Amino acid sequence: MPTAEGSLGFTRTERAVLFTGDDPLVLAGGRRLGPVEVAYETYGTLSPERDNAVFVCHALTGDAHAAGHHGDPGRVGWWDNLIGPGKPLDTDRFFVICPNLLGGCQGTTGPTSPDPHTGRPYGLDFPMLQMTDFVTVHRRLLEHLGIDRLRAAVGGSLGGMQVLQWAVDAPEQVRDAVVVAASSRLTAQNIAFSAVAREAIMRDPDFSDGRYAENGRPPHLGMAIARMMAHITYLSEEAMTEKFGRRLQGDEPAGSRMGLGVDFQVESYLNHQGETFLDRFDALSYLYLTRVMDYFDPFADPAAVERIADGGSRFLVVSFDSDWRFDTAHSRRIVRTLEHAGVPTSFREIRSAWGHDSFLLRPPGYHETIEAFLDGAAR
Amino acid sequence: MPTAEGSLGFTRTERAVLFTGDDPLVLAGGRRLGPVEVAYETYGTLSPERDNAVFVCHALTGDAHAAGHHGDPGRVGWWDNLIGPGKPLDTDRFFVICPNLLGGCQGTTGPTSPDPHTGRPYGLDFPMLQMTDFVTVHRRLLEHLGIDRLRAAVGGSLGGMQVLQWAVDAPEQVRDAVVVAASSRLTAQNIAFSAVAREAIMRDPDFSDGRYAENGRPPHLGMAIARMMAHITYLSEEAMTEKFGRRLQGDEPAGSRMGLGVDFQVESYLNHQGETFLDRFDALSYLYLTRVMDYFDPFADPAAVERIADGGSRFLVVSFDSDWRFDTAHSRRIVRTLEHAGVPTSFREIRSAWGHDSFLLRPPGYHETIEAFLDGAAR
Repeated sequence: MPTAEGSLGFTRTERAVLFTGDDPLVLAGGRRLGPVEVAYETYGTLSPERDNAVFVCHALTGDAHAAGHHGDPGRVGWWDNLIGPGKPLDTDRFFVICPNLLGGCQGTTGPTSPDPHTGRPYGLDFPMLQMTDFVTVHRRLLEHLGIDRLRAAVGGSLGGMQVLQWAVDAPEQVRDAVVVAASSRLTAQNIAFSAVAREAIMRDPDFSDGRYAENGRPPHLGMAIARMMAHITYLSEEAMTEKFGRRLQGDEPAGSRMGLGVDFQVESYLNHQGETFLDRFDALSYLYLTRVMDYFDPFADPAAVERIADGGSRFLVVSFDSDWRFDTAHSRRIVRTLEHAGVPTSFREIRSAWGHDSFLLRPPGYHETIEAFLDGAAR
Repeated sequence: MPTAEGSLGFTRTERAVLFTGDDPLVLAGGRRLGPVEVAYETYGTLSPERDNAVFVCHALTGDAHAAGHHGDPGRVGWWDNLIGPGKPLDTDRFFVICPNLLGGCQGTTGPTSPDPHTGRPYGLDFPMLQMTDFVTVHRRLLEHLGIDRLRAAVGGSLGGMQVLQWAVDAPEQVRDAVVVAASSRLTAQNIAFSAVAREAIMRDPDFSDGRYAENGRPPHLGMAIARMMAHITYLSEEAMTEKFGRRLQGDEPAGSRMGLGVDFQVESYLNHQGETFLDRFDALSYLYLTRVMDYFDPFADPAAVERIADGGSRFLVVSFDSDWRFDTAHSRRIVRTLEHAGVPTSFREIRSAWGHDSFLLRPPGYHETIEAFLDGAAR
């Protein structure tokens, strides 16, 4: 059974214009957006009955490239360990779809896309988004692919929040909902971390009121700081200790090299994370997408919970015990609300030392739980 | 009994030149520094036997003004709830001393002081400091005041780390050591938070290689971000939830005002903390002092523990259960090491919702514990 990483081989990002100026996307906030182009990938084959589609929703800085590789077999998609022949999202059985989300910067229309009214990038004229807007675009993509109903929707972190919103907006369309390391409502501390990241970006002189794309000088200072700080919250304290401890860079004794720069290995790691982020992510997308998370609070509306209950979706909620970005209390809250409404819900807290990032890894029991849930759903 | 806040009335910061060019401070790293001026305050009266001195060590951004007020009775010192007549550091009984620490920016020589060799502020030519350098200066201040031995040394956070170092360097001089919400060794995560703060400051274009004092344009962007991030770590998640929850600024419904700015109350709080910090603290001091904390690791040297054990100091170690900057595990490690070496050590974890900041507040049992420890020591 070919279960090695990258077993899907070469995969490719497709693009589709799903909304146009004449047929715009009507956002929850009331504004209209068109054209909207969406980048997406698919893996596996859609069954003749069109009943084996599994939709994957990515996290904050993810993209459409979830599995396989784009030419370099050493660099596979971000969820390649989950998606492929014989893997939990088994491409021998499922037709897996993963789009870059609305407001993103990796192929789907976002704040750096050209505003058709001006020909310039939208910048801060891009409309504010809500979680439901992501789902509206995802549903249009399904329509484009000729699929009525999903066998499953699966997502981690912000991806899990999209899955939850989908079950609110169109529960009849989602048979099985897999919500991993997510939240139905950020805490003040969650919001605080994102707020400081946004401030770092917007206060960067190079942010230029969101017009940096035009002068080719993005707010690298703010972006690097935002990413470094975020990375602290993605790893557990335990994982950081195991990975870096108090080890210094190089071999010299501490006293001989003490300075204000990169002395400790953990500093080198954070700097590296900050730098590599600059090449692959956009500052405005970071602002818009984090804000969507801050405002997300679907259970504030009792009717939303009723809609899920009436719709017949079945849930798997997964948390990781060392995740302190969205700790298990966030997942328990989702589970409690769903169960209270009579929604069939499985919950599993997975032991893992790796904090929030665990949803991208393979701690024991995690993939097995998803596989068993989807298998159980099949019966 | 006058226990109201500010019961000390008007207090004043004194200054003393404790080291000169001819009699320089010899730093642990080998460099020499002179002159060194120290700002300090004292409260209460030194006994004729000179045996009632209590030394207070401040935290990262503290200063010499620990109690009383400087003219505005509404603005009292940072530890006024602990210091005063009838309070745990009872100025009717004790002579309390609090200096601004070396490398600081509030009266004591630091990186923005003039370098006698150039006449310009030191900037990044200021030497790297170690915890023991603070103690060397504190001890010279005692000498200046004609005091041989301390009845007690007391400090929270970085202040507690100074107390611990004092007990290593000159245990015979510290009868009772009170170490609150401190650490004997930062974790990778602790270092990571400080590292990102330093990067935010040093990457700010206005940092100007540490020469900002000369052009009068300090790195406000970096400083505000550093402070905002630090404040997240000072409050517990629980306290943030209680204090701000997900409440929005103003009264409008969420949808009508959603933007990228200060929408949530927690964002307003962080912005305010960032702004007020700019007026009162210096960027280079922030860099130098946080670095001292990163490198602090006294128990790495077994001889250090032996010196404490031989010196006869008695310890009280206090932690707060919701403190996640230096959680109780940090305090337990100190306690375990001291007890293993036979040092008389009391330990108390105080219940408090307010996280690391609790050491500045009065959660039930906290002040009582310090008072009882100092009373017990008196018998």
